[in-house]
Amino acid sequence: MRIFSTLIVAFSVTLLLSASAQAKDPLPSWTKGPAKSAIIEFVRAVTKKGGKDYVPPDERIATFDNDGTLWVEYPIYTQILFAFDRVKELAPQHPEWKTTQPFKALLEGDMKTVGASGMKGVMEIITATHSGMTADEFAEEVSKWLATTKQDKFKRLYTKLVYQPQLDLLAYLRRNGFKTFIVSGGGIAFMRTVSEKAYGIPPEQVVGSSIVTEFQDKDGKPELVRMPKIDFINDKAGKPVGIYQHIGRRPILAFGNSDSDMQMIEYTMAGEGRRLGLFVHHTDAEREYAYDRKSHVGVLDKALDQATANGWIIVDMKKDWKRVFPRVAP
Amino acid sequence: MRIFSTLIVAFSVTLLLSASAQAKDPLPSWTKGPAKSAIIEFVRAVTKKGGKDYVPPDERIATFDNDGTLWVEYPIYTQILFAFDRVKELAPQHPEWKTTQPFKALLEGDMKTVGASGMKGVMEIITATHSGMTADEFAEEVSKWLATTKQDKFKRLYTKLVYQPQLDLLAYLRRNGFKTFIVSGGGIAFMRTVSEKAYGIPPEQVVGSSIVTEFQDKDGKPELVRMPKIDFINDKAGKPVGIYQHIGRRPILAFGNSDSDMQMIEYTMAGEGRRLGLFVHHTDAEREYAYDRKSHVGVLDKALDQATANGWIIVDMKKDWKRVFPRVAP
Repeated sequence: MRIFSTLIVAFSVTLLLSASAQAKDPLPSWTKGPAKSAIIEFVRAVTKKGGKDYVPPDERIATFDNDGTLWVEYPIYTQILFAFDRVKELAPQHPEWKTTQPFKALLEGDMKTVGASGMKGVMEIITATHSGMTADEFAEEVSKWLATTKQDKFKRLYTKLVYQPQLDLLAYLRRNGFKTFIVSGGGIAFMRTVSEKAYGIPPEQVVGSSIVTEFQDKDGKPELVRMPKIDFINDKAGKPVGIYQHIGRRPILAFGNSDSDMQMIEYTMAGEGRRLGLFVHHTDAEREYAYDRKSHVGVLDKALDQATANGWIIVDMKKDWKRVFPRVAP
Repeated sequence: MRIFSTLIVAFSVTLLLSASAQAKDPLPSWTKGPAKSAIIEFVRAVTKKGGKDYVPPDERIATFDNDGTLWVEYPIYTQILFAFDRVKELAPQHPEWKTTQPFKALLEGDMKTVGASGMKGVMEIITATHSGMTADEFAEEVSKWLATTKQDKFKRLYTKLVYQPQLDLLAYLRRNGFKTFIVSGGGIAFMRTVSEKAYGIPPEQVVGSSIVTEFQDKDGKPELVRMPKIDFINDKAGKPVGIYQHIGRRPILAFGNSDSDMQMIEYTMAGEGRRLGLFVHHTDAEREYAYDRKSHVGVLDKALDQATANGWIIVDMKKDWKRVFPRVAP
């Protein structure tokens, strides 16, 4: 009996200690400051039973942009780099690309001309490389590329360039009954190959841009075939629409990093009751990148100007994050 | 100590009894027979750790059609009755309807002409009554109508005309780690007002047809506004596409009741590993309705012919279901 009691006491002390450690710092990679306090205060308020800001668990919807909010987007969105690599790989099957822009420039390494082709050119490259195969084949291509391609500056896989403070936050929200979603301008099928492993977000909780898909009989086997046509762009004013179509409830917390996330955050904040809207501000040229108003990706300009008036939290990467990436071998 | 031990024993016995009752009959409203056995055998196989058919919990996706599979669809789909009632209510604001078909016929009670207008006419009525308001306003109208309108034959609210055996099945699947989804030709926003309360399925697990929605500034408040234009029809070959866009994984169990569900079930069954596809066959004129091959709603014809060859389970409502509706006051 004596040993048994001692074990129980030891076990209880362990529980208490770990509970108190967690109560002390639920966001270990966040530096003490106004952003961290605002998050913790918000979560406490909406989960406090009987409190005036209480929100039932099934309405605790939190939405996160992906590129630049959950993982690195600089200097070029990961999915676009994937598309560029696919063009090089698929070129032998597309002799016409040798004479068609922007494919010709891309194959010749003339990135200035590719850049000059603008959004239209990039969408042509995306459409060409993301269609013409089954859903399963596409997912396999993406998985293979993500498992083998390293980012230039950090020499890490893209899946290891997720932000540790955001992993802390996602886990903290889920521990508090939140359902966490990705709501991104990126391709829904691209992100789904990685969302569960990288963020603990299952495919059905990913909202993104999509191309038209058809159900076809492929050699006697029913398959989903990806067509060379954009279906929906889940960006800017498209984000609240994507949230409505996929989730069907207004989030109570939304996190972005650029002006393209403003509509999602406006929509979130306009609901009744307590709300939280946040933006990552990329201020850390050393540990990651520094860019905002005049950037070629992830422009954060209007949102910076309007943040204070709207009660949006600007998270300063340099000041608010103790570390940027997970502590794993690169 | 004596009282304490007795309490523990009593409590354990209660637990054992309820566990054994559940183990004995996880589907109490289903009659013993091949359909019930097939379901139970399937669930046991995919949840048995180390078994050859084992499926990890996060891949246990089950999709259910709604009209005729989870609730009554006969003699007219519930959502169409809602649209008809809305035309009558909105008529004063639409003087043009007095002279425009099929609205004129509907307002005059000439259902033969409404019927003759076919799918095109019905879609015009749906579009006119489901757009021109915010997402929140629409949800409120639907909720109000469902809370007050009773079905003709049964004199019950439509939300009380859900099938008890399917409620048993949904609960049984969820107890076994499945994530349950609705995948229906019905309107996504219409079904979401009722899915959680009626079936325990949250809005984000509902896939359906949709109309175009825009994010707009309404008198200084950002709102989602429903536009008079069809966005996506989640029916027939649209169902696997809707599953891909919303869920992003192939179900391992799919349940429908008509030829419109065949593609969803084909897609489900074509995946690797153990799968289950089922159809409700409406055979019970007394307790519900009897209709199949030549019906004007929920045609079950080709699926009946192909069931045996494809290993699909036909659930005979009369033989396989002990009771049809929940035991609640009407």
